[in-house]
Amino acid sequence: MARLHFIILIFSSIFAISSSSFIRPPHPFDPLTRTELKLVRNVIKKTYPVGPKYNFTFQYVGLNEPDKSLVLSWHSSPDQNVKPPPRQAFIIARDSGKTREIVVDFSSRAIISDKIHVGKGNPMLTIDEQEAATELVHKFKPFRDSIRRRGLKLSEVVVTSSTMGWFGETKTERLIKTIPFYLNGSVNTYLRPIEGLTIIVNLDKMKVTKFKDRFTSPLPKANGTEFRFSKLNPPFGPALRNAVLFQPNGPGFKIEGHIVRWANWEFHMSFDVRAGLVISLASIFDMDMNKYRQVLYKGHVSEIFVPYMDPSADWYFITYLDCGEFGCGQSAVSLEPYNDCPAGAAFMDGIFAGQYGTPTKISNVMCIFEKHAGDIMWRHTEVEVPGLEITEVRPDVSLVARMVTTVGNYDYIIDYEFKPSGSIKMEVGLTGVLEVKPVEYVHTSEIKEDDIHGTLIADNTVGVNHDHFVTFRLDLDIDGTNNSFVRTELVTKAPKSVNTPRKSYWTTKQKTAKTEAEARVKLGLNVEEFVVVNADRRTKHGNEVGYRLFPGPVSGTLLTQDDYPQIRAAFTNYNMWITPYNKSEMWTSGLYTDRSQGDDTLAVWSQRNREIEKKDIVMWYTVGFHHVPCQEDFPTMPTLSSGFELRPANFFEQNPVLKVKPIKLTTTPCCTCTNG
Amino acid sequence: MARLHFIILIFSSIFAISSSSFIRPPHPFDPLTRTELKLVRNVIKKTYPVGPKYNFTFQYVGLNEPDKSLVLSWHSSPDQNVKPPPRQAFIIARDSGKTREIVVDFSSRAIISDKIHVGKGNPMLTIDEQEAATELVHKFKPFRDSIRRRGLKLSEVVVTSSTMGWFGETKTERLIKTIPFYLNGSVNTYLRPIEGLTIIVNLDKMKVTKFKDRFTSPLPKANGTEFRFSKLNPPFGPALRNAVLFQPNGPGFKIEGHIVRWANWEFHMSFDVRAGLVISLASIFDMDMNKYRQVLYKGHVSEIFVPYMDPSADWYFITYLDCGEFGCGQSAVSLEPYNDCPAGAAFMDGIFAGQYGTPTKISNVMCIFEKHAGDIMWRHTEVEVPGLEITEVRPDVSLVARMVTTVGNYDYIIDYEFKPSGSIKMEVGLTGVLEVKPVEYVHTSEIKEDDIHGTLIADNTVGVNHDHFVTFRLDLDIDGTNNSFVRTELVTKAPKSVNTPRKSYWTTKQKTAKTEAEARVKLGLNVEEFVVVNADRRTKHGNEVGYRLFPGPVSGTLLTQDDYPQIRAAFTNYNMWITPYNKSEMWTSGLYTDRSQGDDTLAVWSQRNREIEKKDIVMWYTVGFHHVPCQEDFPTMPTLSSGFELRPANFFEQNPVLKVKPIKLTTTPCCTCTNG
Repeated sequence: MARLHFIILIFSSIFAISSSSFIRPPHPFDPLTRTELKLVRNVIKKTYPVGPKYNFTFQYVGLNEPDKSLVLSWHSSPDQNVKPPPRQAFIIARDSGKTREIVVDFSSRAIISDKIHVGKGNPMLTIDEQEAATELVHKFKPFRDSIRRRGLKLSEVVVTSSTMGWFGETKTERLIKTIPFYLNGSVNTYLRPIEGLTIIVNLDKMKVTKFKDRFTSPLPKANGTEFRFSKLNPPFGPALRNAVLFQPNGPGFKIEGHIVRWANWEFHMSFDVRAGLVISLASIFDMDMNKYRQVLYKGHVSEIFVPYMDPSADWYFITYLDCGEFGCGQSAVSLEPYNDCPAGAAFMDGIFAGQYGTPTKISNVMCIFEKHAGDIMWRHTEVEVPGLEITEVRPDVSLVARMVTTVGNYDYIIDYEFKPSGSIKMEVGLTGVLEVKPVEYVHTSEIKEDDIHGTLIADNTVGVNHDHFVTFRLDLDIDGTNNSFVRTELVTKAPKSVNTPRKSYWTTKQKTAKTEAEARVKLGLNVEEFVVVNADRRTKHGNEVGYRLFPGPVSGTLLTQDDYPQIRAAFTNYNMWITPYNKSEMWTSGLYTDRSQGDDTLAVWSQRNREIEKKDIVMWYTVGFHHVPCQEDFPTMPTLSSGFELRPANFFEQNPVLKVKPIKLTTTPCCTCTNG
Repeated sequence: MARLHFIILIFSSIFAISSSSFIRPPHPFDPLTRTELKLVRNVIKKTYPVGPKYNFTFQYVGLNEPDKSLVLSWHSSPDQNVKPPPRQAFIIARDSGKTREIVVDFSSRAIISDKIHVGKGNPMLTIDEQEAATELVHKFKPFRDSIRRRGLKLSEVVVTSSTMGWFGETKTERLIKTIPFYLNGSVNTYLRPIEGLTIIVNLDKMKVTKFKDRFTSPLPKANGTEFRFSKLNPPFGPALRNAVLFQPNGPGFKIEGHIVRWANWEFHMSFDVRAGLVISLASIFDMDMNKYRQVLYKGHVSEIFVPYMDPSADWYFITYLDCGEFGCGQSAVSLEPYNDCPAGAAFMDGIFAGQYGTPTKISNVMCIFEKHAGDIMWRHTEVEVPGLEITEVRPDVSLVARMVTTVGNYDYIIDYEFKPSGSIKMEVGLTGVLEVKPVEYVHTSEIKEDDIHGTLIADNTVGVNHDHFVTFRLDLDIDGTNNSFVRTELVTKAPKSVNTPRKSYWTTKQKTAKTEAEARVKLGLNVEEFVVVNADRRTKHGNEVGYRLFPGPVSGTLLTQDDYPQIRAAFTNYNMWITPYNKSEMWTSGLYTDRSQGDDTLAVWSQRNREIEKKDIVMWYTVGFHHVPCQEDFPTMPTLSSGFELRPANFFEQNPVLKVKPIKLTTTPCCTCTNG
């Protein structure tokens, strides 16, 4: 045990030292530290009453996005000796029924901006207020009566909070719906919903404002919902052997503060309570040019839209916008060494402000590890050269930055995989537990309705049809900020020459998108390639320097444009969008997502149809899943993955991994097994 | 070094012992052994003159596909004590200008069938005849004159063979075109083509039948084409650290002859000179039912279609059907331990018959290894249960069976990845070297043509636009042979009830394909799911037992239907097809692919529009790539991957990996570094 643990400990301590000792000033993208969060609270406390007794709550506290030009001039200066941008916090607070936007400056230790949000939508929900609301419901007499009337034990009832969306209401107070579940013999909460109750809580007033007991429904059995190894009965299996990656020279990455350096990559890795894992200033070292070249200024999940496909009273509103409503960072979980991330992984904590401004830690909320999957980086066997048989192979290795966000029942695994070849792969894994609906049936032959809106996956249990749309915001800076988006259509042609027996071939038709409208993409309609190019740079052979998007499997929205959830999530109307960089356009579902009305989404911003040619542009890409559940998804779901790849296309002059050394096992381990 | 090598040696020797000692009769799917190949030669020699002096050549020798019903009754019998099907070889021979199909039976040691092929198309080319043809050209005086006229050294010229397709000719003799390349300072043959020569060789007559020196063109420089580590100059990089997977209890797979057992999977792994790696009788152990259940009767690559998109004289015919013309097994390469397959991999050799029937070995032509990529099999963090915070995670492990086939310039990595969850992922990786065209340009600004049919990737070098279509034949037997193909469309609906504020949702519309026509799929036209179900079996909840196809990124053909290459490769007209099982329908491009005319392709078989409901059915799926080259693809190309997944859908009653034990590192290695 000792040695492997030792390696991990070294890394943890490197991180701990550099992030807390402040030997040098923080990186402009460093997340707010515990000290800074405390400072925010103290600064605000001078102006507003803060604490459980007062009507002032911190709904979001994060780094105030530093001015991009200042970050870039700092980053590109030799030894980064140019002054970094001023370090500030951005706070969204709820103050006596109003939403307040506050900027706190750390050097002056003062509020430098403070205004009331007058538009639509509400801020992210805090964990504290959701807990308070569900506790309130638990004690609410009519609710207790309803539970008793069902013959259920109150002590076994868990109440959870659900956002309620917007369905044309003119008043959109901070209301949530709460949904009760019945544990009694299960710890797999979400598999045992108690249906038929409408319970609405006003979060500002912290009062139940509506309660209706509409009907009773059967309860899915607790049988088979167990998922804890310690409580399951044998036989166990299938049996898998342990494996440990041994690195004779230690892992190849170095972490300094939040900066990760590995192979030819360098990037900054941060945590935001809304987005979760944020990658910034990712650059790749070009051996020919002997310098780092920019690729990704900032990349993160901007929203996860999860509409369910049952229009009935208990379900129609379940159309979550997870990051904007619940916080994909706030919902992120501590990763388990060896299981969530393999041996050799390094971990980083996440710190965010609780409802009253107090720092809260999620330990090991992100991890970084080398992936040795057995893939081949490149190879060729050449047999045509007389007297020689040449085989050159390089095994692939990549670096993965991971977070897992568990928004209620679903666990989303978000991976950024950096390859020495210059590729960045974004991968989304879905696992966790389904949202289910109780029914009276145990067999499909008993089903009376036309449509049960899902699959009968267990006794009295329908796994309800739904979608997942994970929208990434990728502020690409391909070798600088002066970028264009080129769509290359592959077009079938008839040969002009009469001297060929071929009747057809395809050729490329390039078009640079001039405005946002020209860059909205529904994948699959045309055969197209998509490249972000640098308008200032060409290779020595004259090709535009670029990065190409390789889409993964495609799923788009099937909701109608006039449906309320779709209006709010209109950013899923296309699979891909390009916008000009705008500091305020970070959250595709709008800054205020809870009960939003769709007036501040990517789709609205894009309607301005701004110019995007030779500009600093941002790519928005949505990874989509349509999910018709199956029995294998019960009681927990084997991971289903999808994603996409960004890959250099004429960015380098040649194969950037041509000169990677092959693996020669000159130094090999001698391993023995010991009981740890 | 010792220990890791030791593990591999153990495996190699297990394999060697069991495959050569014949303690028990061969598995019906075992490839022909060296002994059997010798027997084939001896049996045929009794009837036909065999050897370099005679006009009789072995073009294909493989296992004669055993009768499926006999295999299944043998396989399903207790201890497999039912008699296996008769073991036979299928031989395609060229006999004095005719193509002969011969079946040799091993128990009677006799030819039991012998007929002359009267249809169109020619058999696979042998390596020997291609070598003879290119040597012939090298000595051909007009060719030597042409080379000299260009001022080139003959000793530095390599001649390669190219199939020439079919472009409406009525006579389709066994002609090939040969293409010369100029090494002079390079070993990267394919990057230095000598253009302007048309050289046709008749393989049966072994004569140059056409020679034309049409024009001279510039020669791409040798500079920068080197790809051997030993010949490259520093600086090397990016630097990657070695890593070795250490398994305290050894690898989890067991190989007995050609049967691989790992976790809950069991399958047979074989080698065919045309297909390469063949997976057979893949079954998964169902813990609830306490038995193995069938999934895949047989799966392999059936064809790789690679049309280039330059209609000019030197290029129009380059529309390879790699497996049918060159043999994807015959072109498969020896895999390099540690580089092509990671430490811990086990290897199998491939043996095939040379042109005169003599056994030829490709050592280490296939490998099997456990993939510990750091993925998560399933997880859930449950925070709603009072007093408990539950996190259950299982890291994913899978088993990969791999081959690499290098058909000239391109290296195709073909992986079958088996997951404990029941998934099988088919992945195709493209790497190797581009086919390029010499041009006078070194910079895009110099280009005069409308269309250079590719990208200027190096001095005087255009990487020509092309496609890759890798078609898999997957004879799925989902829990038995009585299967149907269900297409489930996701359809947007308006809610009927007035009691919902939702304006839309989607629901599923299932349709079971009754005939082949109903099962031809162009992906992307509709939002659809595709499941192969067993018509006899339902889960205890009444769902149809099935396996679902998850397509990967989609690319279809862009050639017109009337273009000759497309007629021959009409199996790419759709991304997916279903046919009823037919022993004779194994090769999607027809049994005789060289110079074929498209009369024996999947597209033609499918026109019979046979019934496929409740039948033994076969799925054909094509992984496609459109490839517009970029400079990173020079001088070797970083692997580009695509694939698809087959995943159980109501095959199991519940999550089949729920009861996998979590990793507890109770036994951990203590590793030290020693010089090997």
